[in-house]
Amino acid sequence: MVAVSLHALPGVPHIEPGDDLAGIVIDVVARNDVALDDGDVVVLAQKIVSKSEGRYADLSAVEPSLEAKRLAGICGKDPRLVELILSESVGVLRCVPGVIIVRHRLGLVLANAGIDQSNLPGNAAGGRALLLPLDPDASAHRLRRTLVERSGRRCGVAIIDSLGRAWRQGTTGICIGAAGFGALSDMRGSRDLYGRTLQSTIIGTGDELAAAASLVMGQANEGTPIVLVKGLALLLQNGNAQTLVRPLCEDLFQ
Amino acid sequence: MVAVSLHALPGVPHIEPGDDLAGIVIDVVARNDVALDDGDVVVLAQKIVSKSEGRYADLSAVEPSLEAKRLAGICGKDPRLVELILSESVGVLRCVPGVIIVRHRLGLVLANAGIDQSNLPGNAAGGRALLLPLDPDASAHRLRRTLVERSGRRCGVAIIDSLGRAWRQGTTGICIGAAGFGALSDMRGSRDLYGRTLQSTIIGTGDELAAAASLVMGQANEGTPIVLVKGLALLLQNGNAQTLVRPLCEDLFQ
Repeated sequence: MVAVSLHALPGVPHIEPGDDLAGIVIDVVARNDVALDDGDVVVLAQKIVSKSEGRYADLSAVEPSLEAKRLAGICGKDPRLVELILSESVGVLRCVPGVIIVRHRLGLVLANAGIDQSNLPGNAAGGRALLLPLDPDASAHRLRRTLVERSGRRCGVAIIDSLGRAWRQGTTGICIGAAGFGALSDMRGSRDLYGRTLQSTIIGTGDELAAAASLVMGQANEGTPIVLVKGLALLLQNGNAQTLVRPLCEDLFQ
Repeated sequence: MVAVSLHALPGVPHIEPGDDLAGIVIDVVARNDVALDDGDVVVLAQKIVSKSEGRYADLSAVEPSLEAKRLAGICGKDPRLVELILSESVGVLRCVPGVIIVRHRLGLVLANAGIDQSNLPGNAAGGRALLLPLDPDASAHRLRRTLVERSGRRCGVAIIDSLGRAWRQGTTGICIGAAGFGALSDMRGSRDLYGRTLQSTIIGTGDELAAAASLVMGQANEGTPIVLVKGLALLLQNGNAQTLVRPLCEDLFQ
């Protein structure tokens, strides 16, 4: 029987710029009643990766452009926040009251360029913002290298965020950084139960893993941004989350 | 520590129209080394629900309309299959070579109206097709009622399918039928770690659960269409998957 378990690890400290995330993962695993094994995947909320990389922006230091002011007038957001959003994006897909959806420089299509103002210390008034990591795949690979070196375990690493979606209500976890496992699983050419060749089954394994981890991570004040996933029979390989981004030339919903 | 486990249950028989799915769930749980407990969610692949409801169509009995022939000329699919797709849909969003994306009568936006030709007995040549259940929320509620009656356990039921997505490569599991748990979790008004009120966090719990289950279900010939999810602290309530469909008036990507 395939049995997978998802462990939300309590006791992760508040993360500061420069913090050693690999050390924190190893600590928090040791303090809970689990072990890091070969084939496990360590899933981290984007937020703690961004914090460790110091990806903060201070809205009071932002000078909004004319375009940011124009869009802010449409969506009703702070023009300085819109300026930040634009600086993280390669294009604006939709801007309507309450919503601005952009194509992030990483290829992600998402609201507010993934810029977050919740769960930041001293930010009850909303003056600070946290951007996505500069290169989440590189962050995942760095973190994995250190984890494997220090623990001796051949684990994978996933960095996840929660995004809204077209046509569906509610956010789901998606994978924005991956190392040590294939984020995209190509089943084309496999045979089904009755011998018919599968035509088009490519599975977004990294995103399914992210959604699963998000289910136990919690979004509000639970504070469990590290989840250990055990029992997945993922092939160890040099994966990355960029494979989950649909190429622009195949995008039917620009 | 929040720990959730996902158990893909081997030994599910081939499902025929009229089969008693609740009895099959209870059987297959008993034959494996798990128990059905209060708060568990039984996740079923859409395919076995459709099969038990006899949602087969025979392509040789389908007469394509002019519109189906026109669209088939664009996407390169069998005009009879396109006719079936149209009969299940309320609108066509995109039709390009190799792809037809519709809004299904259930509100789902998906390729081929969710009509599937793999894993059907005697279908190596592709003459048969399987449609989505008529009303997957109703199917989930019926199944849950029977399961609770016979097992005495207050479990939830989810019916899931694997769909492609805008902007992302690879399919992920989504929830098309739900009973006994809230498919959408509204966290608005909760406070974050530092006391800031969350503005917009509504979580697609049913879809995250579906993605998690899909991760262990397998897509090709593994044949494990029933997954037991244990340890989720979901509120037992009269949920349904229709809440996961974004209302047309809020759809920015028609």
